[in-house]
Amino acid sequence: MKTQVAIVGAGPAGMLLSEILHHHGIDSIVVERQTRQYVQSRIRAGVLEQTTVDMLRQYGLADRMEREGHAHDGMKIVWAGRSSFFIDVRQHVGKRFVAYGQTSIQEDLFAAADRRQARLVFGAANVALHGIDTDRPRVSFEADGQTTTIECDYIAGCDGFHGVSRKAIPATVLKEFEKVYPFGWLGILTPRPPLPDIVYANHPRGFALASMRSPTMSRYYIQVPLDTRIEDWSDERFWEELKARYPADLAAAIVEGPSIEKSIAPLRSYVAEPMSHGRLFLAGDAAHIVPPTGAKGLNLAFSDVHYLSRALASRYETGRSDLLERYSDTALRRVWHSVRTSWYLTNLLHRFPSTTAFDQRTQEYELEFLKSSHSAQVALAEQYAGLPLEQT
Amino acid sequence: MKTQVAIVGAGPAGMLLSEILHHHGIDSIVVERQTRQYVQSRIRAGVLEQTTVDMLRQYGLADRMEREGHAHDGMKIVWAGRSSFFIDVRQHVGKRFVAYGQTSIQEDLFAAADRRQARLVFGAANVALHGIDTDRPRVSFEADGQTTTIECDYIAGCDGFHGVSRKAIPATVLKEFEKVYPFGWLGILTPRPPLPDIVYANHPRGFALASMRSPTMSRYYIQVPLDTRIEDWSDERFWEELKARYPADLAAAIVEGPSIEKSIAPLRSYVAEPMSHGRLFLAGDAAHIVPPTGAKGLNLAFSDVHYLSRALASRYETGRSDLLERYSDTALRRVWHSVRTSWYLTNLLHRFPSTTAFDQRTQEYELEFLKSSHSAQVALAEQYAGLPLEQT
Repeated sequence: MKTQVAIVGAGPAGMLLSEILHHHGIDSIVVERQTRQYVQSRIRAGVLEQTTVDMLRQYGLADRMEREGHAHDGMKIVWAGRSSFFIDVRQHVGKRFVAYGQTSIQEDLFAAADRRQARLVFGAANVALHGIDTDRPRVSFEADGQTTTIECDYIAGCDGFHGVSRKAIPATVLKEFEKVYPFGWLGILTPRPPLPDIVYANHPRGFALASMRSPTMSRYYIQVPLDTRIEDWSDERFWEELKARYPADLAAAIVEGPSIEKSIAPLRSYVAEPMSHGRLFLAGDAAHIVPPTGAKGLNLAFSDVHYLSRALASRYETGRSDLLERYSDTALRRVWHSVRTSWYLTNLLHRFPSTTAFDQRTQEYELEFLKSSHSAQVALAEQYAGLPLEQT
Repeated sequence: MKTQVAIVGAGPAGMLLSEILHHHGIDSIVVERQTRQYVQSRIRAGVLEQTTVDMLRQYGLADRMEREGHAHDGMKIVWAGRSSFFIDVRQHVGKRFVAYGQTSIQEDLFAAADRRQARLVFGAANVALHGIDTDRPRVSFEADGQTTTIECDYIAGCDGFHGVSRKAIPATVLKEFEKVYPFGWLGILTPRPPLPDIVYANHPRGFALASMRSPTMSRYYIQVPLDTRIEDWSDERFWEELKARYPADLAAAIVEGPSIEKSIAPLRSYVAEPMSHGRLFLAGDAAHIVPPTGAKGLNLAFSDVHYLSRALASRYETGRSDLLERYSDTALRRVWHSVRTSWYLTNLLHRFPSTTAFDQRTQEYELEFLKSSHSAQVALAEQYAGLPLEQT
């Protein structure tokens, strides 16, 4: 098989990249280890930055999001079950958010790919990258008992944290930055109306988050120790613990429902540098992971795709390769800003098992200062909204 | 001996408290373990917040400061020996700073005390507090081979971190918050003109600070490991290391001179709660220590004295004791804000020996964000300027 860009991974990053490349008349093949049904049913992110919303609109992928998504203006922070304040991103930065599940985005991207009869390979075993240091890179995989090789100009590694793409970069080149947090998030998805705002809670019992996927779909999380067993958490126990971390009025406003998904995720920050090597370019979780605090993961994947698609279009349309050469540096600036913001919000809002009395007090006075300072709220709104995309 | 308020410690906090009480017609005796000469010659802080400057003016203690002090508008931050930005506190918050050495303030306070023939006891050995839980507290000490006891209404503990006052509060009552940093500051005082701005440097070689005491007196610091021996640091070596941590233009502008003082200080954050017990009230370093980053220590001591003198004046003038009862809570709010600011600046500007690659990058991107965000600079200016004094 031959194509211009071989894309490893059919998640949101890989599928959006394939879609944008198609708009520029660039051919691609997407190779995915899992089945289409598996990829389709993954429940992940769901809060889209204005930048992400604008991208989906630009490429004609926003129709259903406009109908089903839930626009909102910022986030509320409550702590110790009492004091609260609202970070009004719309007022401070002029940007909004849309709650719209990654599952729906994935469906929309697959539907768009079907319309253009995109070449997608699912269930590809033993995916391997070859010759990324050469001008003739290749991707091989096994399917239906046969080994297939894709010859291409470039490879986009969009296969997530556990994928093979990043591992193809020589260890002597790759620098890794990592922070592992001593807790996880236990999350529930329920078909009930969410609270009107996204509400982050810092409580002596631990962090909690009331989020949303649509006007009729709520997502709730609570901080749990890493050794938590999901079978110990009935829905009933979850709702009781969740409500204990919110002030009475908010707890009373939470609409309980059956959990249609329940899972535990550990929290991690991770960045790989550089995000490219030879003819291989990484995008999304393949290059970086953020803790879900601040909902940056999917948005970062899409800003990577923005920079990478722009660089590939420039290469094919003008012959210039300077944007491709600068891709890693350009993408990493926005990545690190969001990685820092996610890290900051994680530190600000969680209770760490090893915290000292001093650390606990500085955290409380950080929240106190944020509550009292207009400028600090604007600065946080800028970070939470995500940096603007660089135009050059 | 008898007085209304026995003050333990003749440093800036104790002497200013005595002075303000005198303005309100309240009698005090100051008891100091060291000699007057020793107290007089201690070289410590020197950057006064607007709030501190205003207090000195209000009580007629500012004449010499107006002549010899060096007003300035904010601070510059440089990092990695290249990028820099200026936090313009005057523009953002409408407040300025005055560089004026604690040594000079101490002289001014002693001179004012001499004019009003204040009762000061120096070289008092074995100072002890008695009956702080009763209506008849006492302070005893030994001098000239005799034991003397002061009977008083209230005791002000202004005797610093190592003083006896805080230790008089029962361990069952006192809660301590502490953070010890894994480095110290090696400092030099030299009779040469300082740089026009206070410049904080974060450099791979470590933190550095170019500060000032007057238009003709400079104060410079470099971060050093805790096991550093001062005899290993000639003036020549100090200047070389200092300049290596600044960009070339600033390094060239530093005017070298002989060190008239050279010392190493470890960095620590510490808060004791509550700041009062019975008839004992703590102020300044007796209750809290900040690392020198941000120059908050002396300013916090003076805001404590503001709240304590106001509460004592209210007690003697109206019979009301509510301000005294609220003193600890009121003072601690401002203390914790400055403690958090000092901790934040210390984390932002130093290189920690245990830092991970991830931590280092988040620090760099925090500086990057500060440099790029007007709102973040205003928020930092608010913190660096110090909170306004509470009026109620």
